[in-house]
Amino acid sequence: MVKILAINAGSSTLKWKLFEMPQEKEIATGMVDRLGLPGSTFSVKFNGKKTKDKVDIPTQEVAVDMLLHRLFDSGIIKDIKEIKGVGHRVVAGGEFFKESAEVTPENLQKIIDLGDYAPLHNPNEAKGIQAFQHLLPDAKEVAVFDTSFHTTMPEENFLYSVPLDYYHKYGARKYGAHGTSHRYVSARAAEILKVPLKKQRMITMHLGSGASLTAIKDGKSYDTSMGFTPLAGVTMSTRSGDIDASLVAYLMKKLNLNDIDDMIDILNKKSGLLGISGLSPDMRDLLATREERPESALAIKVFVNRIVKYIGSYVAEMGGVDTLVFTAGMGEGSIPVRKMIIDKLGFIGAKLDVEANKVEAEERIISAPDSKVKILIVPTNEELMIVRDTCKITGLG
Amino acid sequence: MVKILAINAGSSTLKWKLFEMPQEKEIATGMVDRLGLPGSTFSVKFNGKKTKDKVDIPTQEVAVDMLLHRLFDSGIIKDIKEIKGVGHRVVAGGEFFKESAEVTPENLQKIIDLGDYAPLHNPNEAKGIQAFQHLLPDAKEVAVFDTSFHTTMPEENFLYSVPLDYYHKYGARKYGAHGTSHRYVSARAAEILKVPLKKQRMITMHLGSGASLTAIKDGKSYDTSMGFTPLAGVTMSTRSGDIDASLVAYLMKKLNLNDIDDMIDILNKKSGLLGISGLSPDMRDLLATREERPESALAIKVFVNRIVKYIGSYVAEMGGVDTLVFTAGMGEGSIPVRKMIIDKLGFIGAKLDVEANKVEAEERIISAPDSKVKILIVPTNEELMIVRDTCKITGLG
Repeated sequence: MVKILAINAGSSTLKWKLFEMPQEKEIATGMVDRLGLPGSTFSVKFNGKKTKDKVDIPTQEVAVDMLLHRLFDSGIIKDIKEIKGVGHRVVAGGEFFKESAEVTPENLQKIIDLGDYAPLHNPNEAKGIQAFQHLLPDAKEVAVFDTSFHTTMPEENFLYSVPLDYYHKYGARKYGAHGTSHRYVSARAAEILKVPLKKQRMITMHLGSGASLTAIKDGKSYDTSMGFTPLAGVTMSTRSGDIDASLVAYLMKKLNLNDIDDMIDILNKKSGLLGISGLSPDMRDLLATREERPESALAIKVFVNRIVKYIGSYVAEMGGVDTLVFTAGMGEGSIPVRKMIIDKLGFIGAKLDVEANKVEAEERIISAPDSKVKILIVPTNEELMIVRDTCKITGLG
Repeated sequence: MVKILAINAGSSTLKWKLFEMPQEKEIATGMVDRLGLPGSTFSVKFNGKKTKDKVDIPTQEVAVDMLLHRLFDSGIIKDIKEIKGVGHRVVAGGEFFKESAEVTPENLQKIIDLGDYAPLHNPNEAKGIQAFQHLLPDAKEVAVFDTSFHTTMPEENFLYSVPLDYYHKYGARKYGAHGTSHRYVSARAAEILKVPLKKQRMITMHLGSGASLTAIKDGKSYDTSMGFTPLAGVTMSTRSGDIDASLVAYLMKKLNLNDIDDMIDILNKKSGLLGISGLSPDMRDLLATREERPESALAIKVFVNRIVKYIGSYVAEMGGVDTLVFTAGMGEGSIPVRKMIIDKLGFIGAKLDVEANKVEAEERIISAPDSKVKILIVPTNEELMIVRDTCKITGLG
């Protein structure tokens, strides 16, 4: 019986979950918000009790130190040495990390080098790893990459139609993201259905504020909607998804922007549901206002349209589909979003069990008995996947 | 019986076809190449005889003057007044031109104003119109827009997921292209099948050096793969088609480009089949070398993959498909390209009649009798569509 931490370090956040393994028991969870910014907060949830403190947290190292002290002070651990392993989410693993990997000095350097593909993520994640290496020198560190699951895509699916040199020289290709989530929910859906993943053609839909779809064939990621970065694919809360590259150039001129990074920033942060609706990046706000605000209704329609189109493209690419899986914020929580999507899928014989669909964030089958395609809700659990990988690779738990 | 010219004026070309209407008889055809550049040429095909002269042609007006004199000198016409109408292809009609339109002073100004959406095309097309207005003052001029056919798309299909203001203020939306071709072949396919277009869900594939797919529902364009400009969509001869916008920013840095127009130029002219294969933008060269050159085989695979994915997305969006139509260069001419695409469409019950497919540029049905989807080759004829529109609008012929 060991304690393992799952860490998700963002640009100004550090989320964590402490597990007891191999029981897979979630002991405590929490997050540091506004890390390095004024007004940072430190939240913990333990034994059904939530606390949130306003406290100055200038660096990752301070955040980790605070976390370890809090675990000790709260009696969650009696000695910080109880934490035998730490699994870290890392966004970009490029083509190098085809699986999760123990953090050796070489691997840490590689994670830093891959920062070119995810400049807002990998450097911060590397800092998080270093803070734990310093403060928990005896624990084993493992990196779990968002991209690893997608390294199985065939080259005709991951290559862009640009000069091939750009792939060889600069790594210009589709890497995808949300891999840990797609891997978890696809494996779990196969268990629930009692059909090996290898024997199903599956489309997993991670519909959170970031959203991506993955086509899974022969048990492996075959295609995915995010691209070189998580900007591409379907409409998201604040991200545009796919767009004509020429429009980027045109809008820069119209908006008097000289730096393309400013335009990409708009496409990442002010577009998607927020951009179309002019109201909110949150689907719940759009659903609540769709009767009186045509822009809210329009944003919902575009969102559903893009998902339906991606489903169609993956059905075509795989030559059919057996299973659809909904996960993440909207995928788990939005009854109307699931219904609107499935209602458009008559062409593959998908049929919703309307009653079964009336549930939030609960693992279950929601296709009607006579549906030609099985449809499931599987709440995602990336942290569990991270600690499982940590145990597997280090031999702990 | 009247003579009508169809004109397609590009940035350095002017293609023309002379028809006798209403018989729809093609009398003569030709083109001016390298217009305004050193080494310009003037070609004519008439009565099965081809001529090509090297001659200095600095302006559109000189080109048109030369064309009219040649028609007279060759005895193709006895008086330039025989030409009662001229129909012009215009690339961008925006949301304003929902149909072809007679060239009034207001409409000509509007075509010039729409140059923002097609800076390489509309200004030249306007110059071509002006040259004919000057040299054939009695003829009626009609503009036929590449985009008109697509003005029926619903807003959830034509809008990008960017701030909605960009649509209202700057016209940022999907306009599509190749509309005259998609309109012609869809109408012709319906005639061949003796099923009204309104009663079919159809996907038309214009696969030339520029390539686009259109979903046609209720007799109208419902969605199309080209976007704000013809850069978006499937892989083309030298155009990238869809790409992650972030990759544009990343490559600009790697290639040390400061001007996004230089990057868009690479995506338009050095990408697609040419970019991946490193050999040629011509599918025939890639097919001929695919055994010995993996890059040629790869370019073909990517090309087919993107088309199959778009077909899938349109099947999903329309809730099914009844008819597929191939047209333009590869669509009409490439037996293996058609076969590779259709072989991937088992999921909609599409089945190729392999023998019927062994034909180039001939109007025919190529689906097997037990195929659930009708598949046709319909050679496109944009010029015929242009002169038909010219006659209809002006009451000529």
